[in-house]
Amino acid sequence: MPSVSIGVVGLGYWGPNLLRNFAALDECVVKYGCDLKRENLEKMRKNYPAVTYTEKFEDLLKDEGLTAIAIATPTSTHFDLAKKALEAGKHVLLEKPMTSTSMQAKELTELAKKMQLQLLVDHTFVYTGAVSKIEELVKSGEIGELHYFDSTRINLGLIQKDVNVLWDLAIHDLSILNTLHNLENIASLYAHGSTHFTKQPEIAHLHLTFKDGMEAHIHVSWLSPVKIRKTIVGGSKKMILYDDTEPSEKIRIYDKGVHFKELVEDGKPDPFFPVYRSGDVLIPAVPNPEAMRVEAEHFLQCIRGKEKPRVSGEDGARIMKILELANTSLAEKKPLALS
Amino acid sequence: MPSVSIGVVGLGYWGPNLLRNFAALDECVVKYGCDLKRENLEKMRKNYPAVTYTEKFEDLLKDEGLTAIAIATPTSTHFDLAKKALEAGKHVLLEKPMTSTSMQAKELTELAKKMQLQLLVDHTFVYTGAVSKIEELVKSGEIGELHYFDSTRINLGLIQKDVNVLWDLAIHDLSILNTLHNLENIASLYAHGSTHFTKQPEIAHLHLTFKDGMEAHIHVSWLSPVKIRKTIVGGSKKMILYDDTEPSEKIRIYDKGVHFKELVEDGKPDPFFPVYRSGDVLIPAVPNPEAMRVEAEHFLQCIRGKEKPRVSGEDGARIMKILELANTSLAEKKPLALS
Amino acid sequence: MPSVSIGVVGLGYWGPNLLRNFAALDECVVKYGCDLKRENLEKMRKNYPAVTYTEKFEDLLKDEGLTAIAIATPTSTHFDLAKKALEAGKHVLLEKPMTSTSMQAKELTELAKKMQLQLLVDHTFVYTGAVSKIEELVKSGEIGELHYFDSTRINLGLIQKDVNVLWDLAIHDLSILNTLHNLENIASLYAHGSTHFTKQPEIAHLHLTFKDGMEAHIHVSWLSPVKIRKTIVGGSKKMILYDDTEPSEKIRIYDKGVHFKELVEDGKPDPFFPVYRSGDVLIPAVPNPEAMRVEAEHFLQCIRGKEKPRVSGEDGARIMKILELANTSLAEKKPLALS
Amino acid sequence: MPSVSIGVVGLGYWGPNLLRNFAALDECVVKYGCDLKRENLEKMRKNYPAVTYTEKFEDLLKDEGLTAIAIATPTSTHFDLAKKALEAGKHVLLEKPMTSTSMQAKELTELAKKMQLQLLVDHTFVYTGAVSKIEELVKSGEIGELHYFDSTRINLGLIQKDVNVLWDLAIHDLSILNTLHNLENIASLYAHGSTHFTKQPEIAHLHLTFKDGMEAHIHVSWLSPVKIRKTIVGGSKKMILYDDTEPSEKIRIYDKGVHFKELVEDGKPDPFFPVYRSGDVLIPAVPNPEAMRVEAEHFLQCIRGKEKPRVSGEDGARIMKILELANTSLAEKKPLALS
Repeated sequence: MPSVSIGVVGLGYWGPNLLRNFAALDECVVKYGCDLKRENLEKMRKNYPAVTYTEKFEDLLKDEGLTAIAIATPTSTHFDLAKKALEAGKHVLLEKPMTSTSMQAKELTELAKKMQLQLLVDHTFVYTGAVSKIEELVKSGEIGELHYFDSTRINLGLIQKDVNVLWDLAIHDLSILNTLHNLENIASLYAHGSTHFTKQPEIAHLHLTFKDGMEAHIHVSWLSPVKIRKTIVGGSKKMILYDDTEPSEKIRIYDKGVHFKELVEDGKPDPFFPVYRSGDVLIPAVPNPEAMRVEAEHFLQCIRGKEKPRVSGEDGARIMKILELANTSLAEKKPLALS
Repeated sequence: MPSVSIGVVGLGYWGPNLLRNFAALDECVVKYGCDLKRENLEKMRKNYPAVTYTEKFEDLLKDEGLTAIAIATPTSTHFDLAKKALEAGKHVLLEKPMTSTSMQAKELTELAKKMQLQLLVDHTFVYTGAVSKIEELVKSGEIGELHYFDSTRINLGLIQKDVNVLWDLAIHDLSILNTLHNLENIASLYAHGSTHFTKQPEIAHLHLTFKDGMEAHIHVSWLSPVKIRKTIVGGSKKMILYDDTEPSEKIRIYDKGVHFKELVEDGKPDPFFPVYRSGDVLIPAVPNPEAMRVEAEHFLQCIRGKEKPRVSGEDGARIMKILELANTSLAEKKPLALS
Repeated sequence: MPSVSIGVVGLGYWGPNLLRNFAALDECVVKYGCDLKRENLEKMRKNYPAVTYTEKFEDLLKDEGLTAIAIATPTSTHFDLAKKALEAGKHVLLEKPMTSTSMQAKELTELAKKMQLQLLVDHTFVYTGAVSKIEELVKSGEIGELHYFDSTRINLGLIQKDVNVLWDLAIHDLSILNTLHNLENIASLYAHGSTHFTKQPEIAHLHLTFKDGMEAHIHVSWLSPVKIRKTIVGGSKKMILYDDTEPSEKIRIYDKGVHFKELVEDGKPDPFFPVYRSGDVLIPAVPNPEAMRVEAEHFLQCIRGKEKPRVSGEDGARIMKILELANTSLAEKKPLALS
Repeated sequence: MPSVSIGVVGLGYWGPNLLRNFAALDECVVKYGCDLKRENLEKMRKNYPAVTYTEKFEDLLKDEGLTAIAIATPTSTHFDLAKKALEAGKHVLLEKPMTSTSMQAKELTELAKKMQLQLLVDHTFVYTGAVSKIEELVKSGEIGELHYFDSTRINLGLIQKDVNVLWDLAIHDLSILNTLHNLENIASLYAHGSTHFTKQPEIAHLHLTFKDGMEAHIHVSWLSPVKIRKTIVGGSKKMILYDDTEPSEKIRIYDKGVHFKELVEDGKPDPFFPVYRSGDVLIPAVPNPEAMRVEAEHFLQCIRGKEKPRVSGEDGARIMKILELANTSLAEKKPLALS
């Protein structure tokens, strides 16, 4: 199997992680590291001297031997860089948020399709053992009909300058939710933000009502004294608690639920009589490899046509669209009904 | 000090607790137990044989020696019973929800004032050591300006037949919030509910925005696999985490916060540069007597004119009003702007 | 079925609980309450007026209609009172520690046998849902061969005047252990105590080595800043963690273990190659009724010949014997080899 | 300030961490990496190409420009390598356990003294923020007189082939204890082991009684289903709980204790009347840098004469001595009285 050669663009905060993970894979060679800041290049060179470092993105585009480009630059540059990469025939792994607008996201998606190239969006949580397990539990029908998804992702900081807290944090929950339920089927959406220090919400709640009655609520905050990352997935048969702050026991499956018995009361059947079931709790052993390693391998498998993208351009665009609608709801201070 | 004599009306679920707590106080005699169901009376008689048991509420009204009446009957009867009790010159402790409508609550409040009688509403949480401590921390200024109040009160069951989950559970959070911030100053309110089994929300979120920028969010559910009762009170100086499921360490005070430094960037001062402070966490020793005992003693002290009601009729009416607005918001599916 | 009539002797700290639980059972009548202190009698009379209260133990002995006596007086009086009760033909439930010496315990046991009466010892933990579940898991073979029992039972206080911490706290762990493994088969025993304030150990460790290689370690303390009640039961197939401070999830079953593979190393098979198995964790739903209620019902069933005592006089005597040996080990500061 | 040049010997499991941390310090140059296995050298070369890699330890000894050697080879080789290094005039940082015997440890210590070289033992826990904080709390007198040290360090695996569980795990607790109390002042020692799979204890308890009445108990296990790393430090004024599995809140300081009041009972003063104090719990903000980084910097400061070794050869030898005595106690199955 010929080795895939990869260039990583943007070596500030996230890019080095991408480079490190691709470098660790046997079936892959990191050929380029690219950044506008020379010091970022030098820092990487110290640890990965065999890589070619450049300040010019064009060097990557021109290299016909280069298979793919992973982009971890500031969001505002994503669209241009990814477009050029796709036009140059490179597969692309694009850091989240995918682009600045959902329109751009769609354009990239169509371009990738036209060029028959892989375009994946780097929503790393999707590749964790925990989220994969939840996806399996939901899709296998084990938890029954999906009733609700309730997520809390709060901590102190890191307050972002350019995006509100939904774009920074809720994006993770949306990417997880996207693996469980079709984000196209949202009936209405309401975002509520509160702003205490800056010019945009530092705390926010996003409510999504789906056409089938499923409800999602995502609570994010940069102003919490405690770090909480807890998601409850409520089904008609079972319920899941996913606590990402647990070192190993991240998922608990509750064999709990409620159903209603018909009783006869005063001669008439009474439909109201809730019966609660509180069975065992199972903490499944879930493998916990580094998610980005799993993602890097998956990207290679997609390039080789062996797997289908778990977070495709379409997925990324769908998430972008919801974040845009959330901003609209924040601005208009009201729920949006989506047809 | 002459002993206060008390009658307890409604001996189903909550009333026996009231009777037990009043009976345990030295400065007080429980003279009557009253309920329409004879079996409830007999059950109490077994344990408290010295009390006079009756099915007739009028017996209490007519007894001129009776000082006060505690009412723990179904909500729909509260208004009538409390009105009669006040008109008969009895002080009243009224189980929550105070009445069926906020109008009724106001009417009772005015009647009590006219009659110069005490009217207290039984919001028991207010009398816990934990809530008293939080109130003290907020009012003393120790946590600084109040930024937000975020509460989660979820569990499996007990689904109510007649009221939605906000009326059943959020009422507790509103009574706590009422001790911390003026509930009159709400600028807007949004309630979001989701209904999976019955005809009214079993899961709900209530968002309150105050005129001064303070934000409250209350999340309640009857359909959670786990019991969570967690409230975060965010201040400009410190933040409090109140976890009511902890057996003794219910409150944590975080010496945490954020402020913004002005830095010079490119010759211009940059107002965006968050600095995070993460200091010690203090778990104060908080006395933890039975809240209802504290409440019962407080009621006696109010009757004697020694203390002012911590949850007066006005407080109860204010909470009722918010629950009514929440129902309106649920029905109209939109936020309500309050002048 | 004729009702069992019971007298409760000793109405200080523990006796009222016994009285309350027997009183709540339909198949049973509490006929007498007995205590030397008049105020204890009066306190009970307030709530349970139908009971006959007396300061004279003889009144109970003489009443031929009385079936059984529950004894919750100071330990030093247990032997005399229980002996008289048995001699008078009454079944006996005896508060722990059963007697002052194991000799006395054996004497009572033999007397009961001779009289064909039931003699049960009140080790309440045995009747909890959690301990019953552990017993079931061990006896069914689900956890495999029992390797170890490791228990920590520590808190601040309550320092006892007359007994050391092993007699106060480790007695609970011994009663639990007694349901899991034959306490007769101890090969050696070592008790280690440390004394900081009084004249006898306030912190202690008890090591028991069984003939079959099973090991038990019990750590008890009156001087811990935190309350810990955690027992690990290690088996060859599975392991159990029992945390009694958890409100509902008291038991976790770990599908974890180790086995050794033979590998060939340098041409010779290498017996040392541990393979670790880390499977799921199961938190079984365990019913959690009040243990003393279960115990009270069980006592009645034993009297009626329907059940065999879960904690018989023999069991109580065996536990006494170990506590005596522990005292010897503490005094001699060395392990004791038991034949 | 001239840069310190360092060679790291042994690049298997732990050595690469040492190399990485020294390489990251500005005031230090890693000159050599040394290992008998070529593949270990090559693995390091990939990331740290500027280092000279060699299979010959002599290359380091002969290089007069080399200041210090960090040794992370198998324990059995420590003595020889460290001796040669010291004889060649190099400062030494020696991985724990320091040597195979305490005699060897003493010999190295004396040699270092004679040569006026620094000899530090790599007990990394001592350099954590948590342990430094505990040391500060104990030494400042804030917790009062030290009553006890109780540590539990248990998990599933990793069973060692050559050493028992005390040498593998209790060594960490002994190094922590060594910072708090003089390990020379042990009056008696008892080690209890239990062996279920291999030829040496996989579970063990070590009891140390000090001449001043202080007691230490260390519980270690390779056969626990759960990972627990909890140490309680009990003082006469306050008590500390150190939970190393907590991500950030590793230390809790309990303002708790007990004292005894003299009461007059029956005309005679009764010295037995415990009064419990349960004040606040403080979770101090403790910096949490990588311990080995702190240790590496400290080693450099010791070489420069700016700091005194926090874990000197004497400390290492003292810990070795206790582990040897523990083995004796295990073999003789009895406590050892030390003069």
